[in-house]
Amino acid sequence: MSIRVTVWHEYRHEKVNAACAELYPKGMHEAIAAPLRAHRDLVVRTATLDEPEHGLTAEVLAETDVLTWWGHRAHDEVADAIVDRVQKRVLEGMGLLVLHSGHFSKIFKRLMGTSCDLKWREEKNERETLWVTRPGHPIVQGIEDHFVIDREEMYGEFFDIPEPQSTFLISSFSGGEVFRSGCTWTRGAGKIAYFRPGHETFPTYYDANVKKVIENAVRWVAPLAAFTKPTFGNRKLGWYSAQ
Amino acid sequence: MSIRVTVWHEYRHEKVNAACAELYPKGMHEAIAAPLRAHRDLVVRTATLDEPEHGLTAEVLAETDVLTWWGHRAHDEVADAIVDRVQKRVLEGMGLLVLHSGHFSKIFKRLMGTSCDLKWREEKNERETLWVTRPGHPIVQGIEDHFVIDREEMYGEFFDIPEPQSTFLISSFSGGEVFRSGCTWTRGAGKIAYFRPGHETFPTYYDANVKKVIENAVRWVAPLAAFTKPTFGNRKLGWYSAQ
Amino acid sequence: MSIRVTVWHEYRHEKVNAACAELYPKGMHEAIAAPLRAHRDLVVRTATLDEPEHGLTAEVLAETDVLTWWGHRAHDEVADAIVDRVQKRVLEGMGLLVLHSGHFSKIFKRLMGTSCDLKWREEKNERETLWVTRPGHPIVQGIEDHFVIDREEMYGEFFDIPEPQSTFLISSFSGGEVFRSGCTWTRGAGKIAYFRPGHETFPTYYDANVKKVIENAVRWVAPLAAFTKPTFGNRKLGWYSAQ
Amino acid sequence: MSIRVTVWHEYRHEKVNAACAELYPKGMHEAIAAPLRAHRDLVVRTATLDEPEHGLTAEVLAETDVLTWWGHRAHDEVADAIVDRVQKRVLEGMGLLVLHSGHFSKIFKRLMGTSCDLKWREEKNERETLWVTRPGHPIVQGIEDHFVIDREEMYGEFFDIPEPQSTFLISSFSGGEVFRSGCTWTRGAGKIAYFRPGHETFPTYYDANVKKVIENAVRWVAPLAAFTKPTFGNRKLGWYSAQ
Repeated sequence: MSIRVTVWHEYRHEKVNAACAELYPKGMHEAIAAPLRAHRDLVVRTATLDEPEHGLTAEVLAETDVLTWWGHRAHDEVADAIVDRVQKRVLEGMGLLVLHSGHFSKIFKRLMGTSCDLKWREEKNERETLWVTRPGHPIVQGIEDHFVIDREEMYGEFFDIPEPQSTFLISSFSGGEVFRSGCTWTRGAGKIAYFRPGHETFPTYYDANVKKVIENAVRWVAPLAAFTKPTFGNRKLGWYSAQ
Repeated sequence: MSIRVTVWHEYRHEKVNAACAELYPKGMHEAIAAPLRAHRDLVVRTATLDEPEHGLTAEVLAETDVLTWWGHRAHDEVADAIVDRVQKRVLEGMGLLVLHSGHFSKIFKRLMGTSCDLKWREEKNERETLWVTRPGHPIVQGIEDHFVIDREEMYGEFFDIPEPQSTFLISSFSGGEVFRSGCTWTRGAGKIAYFRPGHETFPTYYDANVKKVIENAVRWVAPLAAFTKPTFGNRKLGWYSAQ
Repeated sequence: MSIRVTVWHEYRHEKVNAACAELYPKGMHEAIAAPLRAHRDLVVRTATLDEPEHGLTAEVLAETDVLTWWGHRAHDEVADAIVDRVQKRVLEGMGLLVLHSGHFSKIFKRLMGTSCDLKWREEKNERETLWVTRPGHPIVQGIEDHFVIDREEMYGEFFDIPEPQSTFLISSFSGGEVFRSGCTWTRGAGKIAYFRPGHETFPTYYDANVKKVIENAVRWVAPLAAFTKPTFGNRKLGWYSAQ
Repeated sequence: MSIRVTVWHEYRHEKVNAACAELYPKGMHEAIAAPLRAHRDLVVRTATLDEPEHGLTAEVLAETDVLTWWGHRAHDEVADAIVDRVQKRVLEGMGLLVLHSGHFSKIFKRLMGTSCDLKWREEKNERETLWVTRPGHPIVQGIEDHFVIDREEMYGEFFDIPEPQSTFLISSFSGGEVFRSGCTWTRGAGKIAYFRPGHETFPTYYDANVKKVIENAVRWVAPLAAFTKPTFGNRKLGWYSAQ
């Protein structure tokens, strides 16, 4: 059984930032999508901000089991109507994987109900260590006790999110800050995961552990094969005992 | 130390529904506020939809520790700018107690990130039994094992809310449905509680157990006396170890 | 990839209770195991209290991915050393599905840390309705909005368990009580589910919905194919950055 | 209204470790108790391992609202019967604050259901930074964004605990490890908090932030003034509607 994945990307940094363009010549979305495409049961497409309807037409979303989201500079340019559409699909069961600076996206703030704010710092040589805090969780399958990313942007607590259902990774940074880097929530019938690393000027999406976590997360947030849609609204007395 | 409570009410049913007006001649907000006013440490005011800014000016919210919310017919008439303002205050620590049909209010949906939909039925003689499912929680202080409301509207699962941090009451109805009638969440520094009973054509807000739960919930969602606001944004390397 | 399931059963009621023996001539464990055996990827064995080491030798447990547990009359006869052994395997990742009166088993109380006590009533004709409260959860895959069991024992709240990670089913009973009938927790690397129905004098384990939930739960609590065991203990400064 | 606190201490290191004895000449329990005694509404006594029944007689526990627990070398010498007694009181509503190496105590493992294991390192000059991850939680009232302890033992993840209800502090250490240093759970009617710092050879219990967190935690885990004990057991049909 296959999982239909749409890798959504803002795709703006590559056009104005030489370091980013050099690292990700086809765009970060292609770097995220490529290792997923290596799995025959994952059917992967991409969508970007500047496409009509940001590439997220009703048809595309109807055919999407899992949506991944990377944005940073242009969160405000995402149309509210598209955010409504994505939220509705998540509540119906579509999985959502929010990456790095996607923490400030309209869709993540919409689903969390909070500001999703944090502390941050961009240094050329700051090291991030990600510690597994929920061994046995499917998203950390195949990940050792911890893993190190030599150079990454720092994100620091307080991260203004609702208490996660599971926190599967916590990071420390050279500078001494900590961050809940891997978290999950449920909204309606949809599963949501957040995964922190992925700054646009570092080769993070080529890291083997990062690729593995993203693949695992895509599989974990994917909806059920046989999903019974919940029903709502007015019910007469005796409606169900009569069945 | 006193808690400043603002009882917000839509205040529309009373004007068009004779049964409601007879039960609550001064409006449901006054019935909700009166037993709170009996406690000297609770400083209570009311605010209603048709006042300027729905009675929720920046000044009023700045002086509000706990906001209670009842709405039903006119959720859509609440201005988005006021919803933004209330959400911001909750994230800063203001407590929010959502009552009955307030489940479909803009502010509750905004903070939950879900549809907040449910099943419902209005009968003249349906009985609700509320069972305590978290003894020891401050919101059920003084409440026995369970309590009965002889006549209430039915709300049935699935209630589309994020998994609560605590579920302190679960109801059964004569018709056989169940409902998570007492739940809590945290958003930012703010505590949120939902409490189900309170249909406009029943004398629910005169019930001793209902009054007790509302008083307890107001006290529990109230913010800390000495709250340290979280800080966000850019930090230079070494910013804190230098302290 | 197959899941190795051990269906553990106390197997005492069948020997003293004619109604139970008539309903379950081969024992309740065989009724629980049979529909699981219909799935080629589930490799099912049974184990019972009166076997040596209760059928749960170190070898059997080492080869068990998921253990299901039904007990009632003889919880105290389960040896503490076997409980220790099962707990250790759960923390290492073995799934555990606790059924009905297994709520009072030593292993469930050990993993919960609470009394696991509840209210109960045995009537010949009490109806149970189970409402789905977490649509989209893998354990309710294929289950409609709710399902009815015509005759079951009543279990009522307060059910003394830690706040579940997910509550996927809540029951109402003819008598008016409610119960959190489907719940999950994580302990160490192991997933735990509780599923309420299954009194020994009713044909519950032949019910299609009950069989489906049990199959789903077995699959959901199953451990990862590639699990990295957590490591503990003393670490020298610089142990990991040196890698 | 006063809170009756019993500060329990193993009280063995002071007798064999000169560094510990010099730092805590009256024992660590007196250092923990002294700042609590400064508050007139906290009625504080101490109890230690080598007293009869470890100082935790039925009478003492019946008069205890909140128990704090520090142990390390002699967890195994705590009698199981006393652990049973403490657990029973927690389920009835007594608050429990587990400190530092108390993570490996029988009572904490009993209530968690897990191994409570972790990584550790003892260095003379390792720095711990504790970051507030749940601003607005009563336990961090008056605590800034973060605080630093210049010298402490390192505890590192994976910390084998059930997913906390709230995680209010996460630590980073000079060596790069992270740890969930402030967590809460509910068991029965009792609230439980864990607070990490407090190695016996460092002056941690004289630190102003540590003292403040301990005072806050004692107040937060304290039981309700008016607690309704849950009821369990057999109920006849119609038992409650007849009320």
